[in-house]
Amino acid sequence: MQATRLDMARIRAARRVIDPVFLDSPLYRCEALEPTLGCTLNIKLETANPVRSFKGRGTEVVADQLARGNSRAVVCASAGNLGQALAWSGRHRDLDVTVVASRFATPAKLDRIRALGATLELVDGDHELARERAAAIAQYDGIRLLEDSLDLETCEGAATIGLELLDSFGPYDDARPVVLIALGGGAMATGIGYVLKALTPYVDVVCVQPYGAPAMTRSWHQRRVVSTETAVTIADGVAGRHPIPEVLDDLLAVADDAVLVQESSIITAIRLLHDHAGLIAEPSAALGIAAILEDPARFADRPVTTIICGSNVDQAKYRTWI
Amino acid sequence: MQATRLDMARIRAARRVIDPVFLDSPLYRCEALEPTLGCTLNIKLETANPVRSFKGRGTEVVADQLARGNSRAVVCASAGNLGQALAWSGRHRDLDVTVVASRFATPAKLDRIRALGATLELVDGDHELARERAAAIAQYDGIRLLEDSLDLETCEGAATIGLELLDSFGPYDDARPVVLIALGGGAMATGIGYVLKALTPYVDVVCVQPYGAPAMTRSWHQRRVVSTETAVTIADGVAGRHPIPEVLDDLLAVADDAVLVQESSIITAIRLLHDHAGLIAEPSAALGIAAILEDPARFADRPVTTIICGSNVDQAKYRTWI
Repeated sequence: MQATRLDMARIRAARRVIDPVFLDSPLYRCEALEPTLGCTLNIKLETANPVRSFKGRGTEVVADQLARGNSRAVVCASAGNLGQALAWSGRHRDLDVTVVASRFATPAKLDRIRALGATLELVDGDHELARERAAAIAQYDGIRLLEDSLDLETCEGAATIGLELLDSFGPYDDARPVVLIALGGGAMATGIGYVLKALTPYVDVVCVQPYGAPAMTRSWHQRRVVSTETAVTIADGVAGRHPIPEVLDDLLAVADDAVLVQESSIITAIRLLHDHAGLIAEPSAALGIAAILEDPARFADRPVTTIICGSNVDQAKYRTWI
Repeated sequence: MQATRLDMARIRAARRVIDPVFLDSPLYRCEALEPTLGCTLNIKLETANPVRSFKGRGTEVVADQLARGNSRAVVCASAGNLGQALAWSGRHRDLDVTVVASRFATPAKLDRIRALGATLELVDGDHELARERAAAIAQYDGIRLLEDSLDLETCEGAATIGLELLDSFGPYDDARPVVLIALGGGAMATGIGYVLKALTPYVDVVCVQPYGAPAMTRSWHQRRVVSTETAVTIADGVAGRHPIPEVLDDLLAVADDAVLVQESSIITAIRLLHDHAGLIAEPSAALGIAAILEDPARFADRPVTTIICGSNVDQAKYRTWI
């Protein structure tokens, strides 16, 4: 593996400062989905915690640092889950948290950010405008800017998921295990991917993004940053347009592939998870199942693990999806 | 506490033979539901495992015993979750599992029992007829009959949930913590209740049953076995009519109260869990929330823990409930 910005000792240290409520999340085989998918399916469930997504792992690391330092204020841009998690971690440590989000973000996510006591600022544009605004606030106020995927703490938090997967891989025979990871800014993919490539290099690391927001996937394939003009997908958690160069470099080192899926497959995946796994998944969390649906031959009879990374859905839309 | 059939050393021993996939299930605060419910709400989630209910804890103990002995065949009556769990535990140990169920049982539960390789026999009647038939099979074939709630292993398995709750209770000030437990045959209530009364006696143990299937609750209040002619409720997992005397005695020793809830409250609770907690709960798993909805003053501002004990729902009905 090429070097990345990540480091195993720091990831193990991250695990020690994360509230245990986010750690050792359920990992189990979901046989009820296997006849439909044609592979062995393991689910890593990151939704059974106070913020219903994996983002708490990273925000715990950031908040722990801030609480030990002099500056107790932090701002981030978020599609909703990072902001909710930062609000939760910050409240537990009496930090001053500001979240900048698009006014088109999922209302339920915004409600939770407010309820957790963070200052919420909405921008009249998409997530990339929220990123610009958060950076401006940080500069103007002289406070910490938390940038998802660029800031190593967000990758290290996600990487602790990777540590929890290691024991699940059986002896490597001819069916190569594969881990399917939702790809947005890249924190989860580079974090988990780094751990797997360092400690179980035979595991196939496949990232999944929607066709409607393909910037990071296109960048990975072209080995250079490719931005897109638009990001149009129901998978709001991964709808970025401007990949971060440092994160792309890390992703090039750890990912075996990055694939794109259709919106219709994401909706089918959400419905399958609802009906056969008893799980509510937000669209970003269903990307892995969508990838299997679109290319069953690739995964046939292989042990596949997918991370159900969030369950914060717009309930009106969810009812139409199922 | 009066003596019960349960014993702490056996419960701790049970924990050592249960597959870890069933242990240390998520326990977390669900603040999004608190404004509606008016109390502090902690969720113990027993659905993120291969059988989507808490029943695997008990069947692991039974199957471990059988695998160590000479007889490798076992039969049980089940509304679906016990049978699914016994099929799972038995398959892992090469046991010969037969499940007897009502032909009116939730189809998805029956499908999973078959898929896990158990022999499924349906009776043209309710759960009580299935119990009679299972007993007849056991006698005729000379095999082990697993009787839910009567057989201590089922109570001990459930009791391991209690062990996992102990650290969550803060110092006892004036707001007395309460644990709400679905009440059917009584294994979960007597198991968890025993652990709590033995180790955290100040915690209020409240059992919840539907008005449509009130036999055990009426028995608890009258301190004698009271059977009912019918059991009509959407909460199929707790729809028994004939309480078991030994289990009632244990319940009298450990429960502080047993309450009944309306079907409409169960449906509201299912919808609230869906919308605000992102959880799919089967009706029996929503009984605790239903109890809060029916008597909010009783629980106001108290720390309340409820066990989401299963997520195996009939999807057609579920869509009408939400």
